[in-house]
Formats: sequence, C-alpha cells, structure tokens
Amino acid sequence: MDSTTVPGLRIREAVKQDTAVILGLITELAEYENLAHEVTATQGQLEEALFGARPFAEVVIAEYEGESVGYALYFHNFSTFLGRPGIYLEDLYVRPDCRGKGIGRALLVTLAEIAKKRNCGRLEWIVLDSNQPALEFYSRLKAIPLDEWTVFRLSGTALDELAAKG
Amino acid sequence: MDSTTVPGLRIREAVKQDTAVILGLITELAEYENLAHEVTATQGQLEEALFGARPFAEVVIAEYEGESVGYALYFHNFSTFLGRPGIYLEDLYVRPDCRGKGIGRALLVTLAEIAKKRNCGRLEWIVLDSNQPALEFYSRLKAIPLDEWTVFRLSGTALDELAAKG
Repeated sequence: MDSTTVPGLRIREAVKQDTAVILGLITELAEYENLAHEVTATQGQLEEALFGARPFAEVVIAEYEGESVGYALYFHNFSTFLGRPGIYLEDLYVRPDCRGKGIGRALLVTLAEIAKKRNCGRLEWIVLDSNQPALEFYSRLKAIPLDEWTVFRLSGTALDELAAKG
Repeated sequence: MDSTTVPGLRIREAVKQDTAVILGLITELAEYENLAHEVTATQGQLEEALFGARPFAEVVIAEYEGESVGYALYFHNFSTFLGRPGIYLEDLYVRPDCRGKGIGRALLVTLAEIAKKRNCGRLEWIVLDSNQPALEFYSRLKAIPLDEWTVFRLSGTALDELAAKG
C-alpha cells in the first residue's frame, strides 16, 4: 500500500483476518450516524462479501501506532457518460480519539491514488447533511456536492412487491 | 430474460453487438438531461467496460415491436450495514415517443427481479431534481428519496491533486 506522511500511520489492504475488526468499525460508524439499528451484517456475511469467490467491495485499513483505528470500504461504479469506471466510497471512518491527525485524509489520498492507477474518472460518495465536520472536510478537498441530485432507494416490501409484478 | 405484460415489448440482456445502440441511447439520455457535453465515451471504451475481461456494468435492453427503444444499465454496490450487495441503477432510459406504455416500469421490474434472485437488499439510483416526470414515476413505485444525504464527487484536477499528495 502507499506511504503516508502521518507519523505512526500505515494504510494497508485488508485481509480476511481483519473481518471482525472491520465489522467492529462499521458498527462504530453506524453508531456515530445514529443508524446502529440498521446494522444487520454478520461476520460470516462480511467475510464472504469481501473475501469470498465474488468480492463485492474492497477495504483499506488505517493502522495508527499498530492499532486498526479506521477504514475505507469502496467498490467500482461506472459512468456511462465517461465510458469509464469510477470508485465509490461506501464508508470512511476514523475513531473519534484518532481524528485531527490526518488519518481520514490519508485514507482518501490512498483512494485517489487507486483511482488514478485504475484509470477511474471519478471518486464519489454520499454524506449525511447533518454531518457538519464531514461536509467541511470534503469541501477542503475541493469535492463538489451534487446538490441537484437526490438518491432514491427501493428495499424491503416495496422491492419485493415490484419484483412480483413481472 | 423475464416476461413482461406490455404487448410488443421484450426485455433482454444486452450482448456485445448492442454496443453501438447502447451508446446511441446513452447520448439521447444525456441530451434529455441537458448533459450532452459530458459524454466522452467511445464505442470501444463501452464495449471493453461492458463485455471485456472485467465487466464493470450490465445492461438490459427494451425492445418494442422489434426495435431497441430503451435500456437500464446497472452494477452491484454494497451495503456494509446489511452485509449484502445491492443493485445500483446508473441509467434508465426510454425514447420519448415510446413513453407511457409501461416500458420504464417493465425495466425496473426486471431489475427488482434480478435483485431478488441475487439476494440483494436494495435497488438504488439518483435522480435529477428537475426531472419531475421521473420523480413522480419513482414515487408511485414507493421508492424512498434519501433527502438527508448529498452526493459528493472528486474528478479532474481535484482528483489528480489529491492523488499527488500521498
């Protein structure tokens, strides 16, 4: 993985043995967003999805002074307009007691490097409008908010009902 | 592909020979969104991305009375909270003279069926806030707008600059 300029920090690709740690950090992120009730992922599901026969996402881990204190989970999306894949950042998380040291920024730099290496045209993600520190952080990186777009979701019963109408 | 209840309509998986038709429909969609200036995809790029060694997206085509009049392009995303993949709908398009017949709805039903078959928890997409017909269409399907989230994007120079800071 790539070097960082933060003393004590190492960014590395996650391996199967990290699954429990990743699930722990996912749960902390959900608690931070007041969405802990939405977390139903099990360690087995996560291991299969990340390290099984058909991986659906990739993870980089931030190790600070030897401890796993943050992660970025991402996968490829695709822009029909560019005709090129992009990188979609699903989760970016750094433990509260390790913030302000440049760790989140180092994780994003790593993703930008991966995007360039893989000839991706874009790096995209979504942010909760109530997450003011995140909004300020992303603005400093010159990320552009796509305010004129709204995310839609079909899940649960509504998805089942639509699928049953074929 | 799955049957539909619209007379004259057939929904089928796209094959490599459809690439030129798909690029034509992508360009029409961009024109409809007043974003034609953003389309730089070439037929070669699209063929490689959709039908090459590492496909980044899948396409279903709507054939109405033997003519390709619409498409849906999608790929898998991943929810860490659910520990399951989802389906992300990048583009949904039906030619203006073929609207109002249930073709767009049939494309979405097909995606919902694929989502269920592949054990996906969600079907997601983004909509331009100015696209009133689309907003009404999706509300009728009981899709939920995630109004409290904003999409962010890093591309071009901003992405290059971040990648160079590692």
